[in-house]
Amino acid sequence: MNRLEQQMQFALEVDKEKMIYRQTYRSDNETFENDAEHAWHAALMTILLSEYASEPFDVLKAVTMLLIHDIVEIDAGDTYAYDEAGIATQAERERKAADRIFNILSEDQAQKMLDLWLEFEAKETPEARFAKVMDNIQPIMLNAATDGRAWKEHEVKLSKILNRNKTTPENSPALWDYMLNNFILPNVEKGRIEDDTKAQEQ
Amino acid sequence: MNRLEQQMQFALEVDKEKMIYRQTYRSDNETFENDAEHAWHAALMTILLSEYASEPFDVLKAVTMLLIHDIVEIDAGDTYAYDEAGIATQAERERKAADRIFNILSEDQAQKMLDLWLEFEAKETPEARFAKVMDNIQPIMLNAATDGRAWKEHEVKLSKILNRNKTTPENSPALWDYMLNNFILPNVEKGRIEDDTKAQEQ
Repeated sequence: MNRLEQQMQFALEVDKEKMIYRQTYRSDNETFENDAEHAWHAALMTILLSEYASEPFDVLKAVTMLLIHDIVEIDAGDTYAYDEAGIATQAERERKAADRIFNILSEDQAQKMLDLWLEFEAKETPEARFAKVMDNIQPIMLNAATDGRAWKEHEVKLSKILNRNKTTPENSPALWDYMLNNFILPNVEKGRIEDDTKAQEQ
Repeated sequence: MNRLEQQMQFALEVDKEKMIYRQTYRSDNETFENDAEHAWHAALMTILLSEYASEPFDVLKAVTMLLIHDIVEIDAGDTYAYDEAGIATQAERERKAADRIFNILSEDQAQKMLDLWLEFEAKETPEARFAKVMDNIQPIMLNAATDGRAWKEHEVKLSKILNRNKTTPENSPALWDYMLNNFILPNVEKGRIEDDTKAQEQ
């Protein structure tokens, strides 16, 4: 197969992301969103909100990370953010998936994509850090817009959300402030997110 | 409303793209893809295939065009590529939608988005030209992968596909060659696309 044939095969393979459903409801509160929709939304929000990053970053690189970040779920499935058993095996399952799917491409392009995906996962560069903020804020925005339905159904605890976002305040103080005060705390007050942090403090 | 509140309102508004269905089947051949999925797919293909553009272009700009290009369909609905009655009123409906939706944002950001959308529609810059190639090749790839189902259902004629792609050969010779020989002509041979060009030649 030549380079372009490999690229077109990859382009068709990733279409399967549209059939990988997440645990986040779309804003119509009727159906779960899928990985392709989530990737689109987070990539668009990166362009929209780039001014709030704590450090300069390459917007195209962060957008690319988000467009490809869930390709591995074609094989590995969606692991819910607060599913601890799933998270224990997630890295291994996803790495195997990355090796298969990115290697549909020619070696140089496969390596570039794999490196970008690994960089995103490692959260150690400005692009990965801001992309992760987007990966977190997008479903939190939708959960808040759907009256906390996904949080209630999964009995999500405040400590888990705070832990998942522990670097968000430093990566984007303004967006963290917005998320906390507009999306998270109002849903704690309404009992849609269980506040387990006070028990821990005592 | 302050700037960030406007941005978050816009980010939530565009979620409605996930509920705007197109006339293209996903590769599972079961359900129509929606605008958000299409935008994600075309944006990702831009990054994947940028090397085939006839002229240098700003990849982030083209990707941004594709991520936002169908936002207007939230109000204007999806106009099928070969629906002539719909196409007659499309520009006016979409312009009105653009004015409402982009103006959820602060004036400077709304203007930037509107300008980018208009630039995409005008197809007169390298970014718009390559983005349009992606906007065309993505559904053609899916139609070919689903045995020409959408073409058959809409009784699409070859002349219409060629007309819609009349600048594709100059904007990306390699991709046009691939599309024509791998996606379009095999489906003409199988009778899934009606070849009306020979009749015109006589």
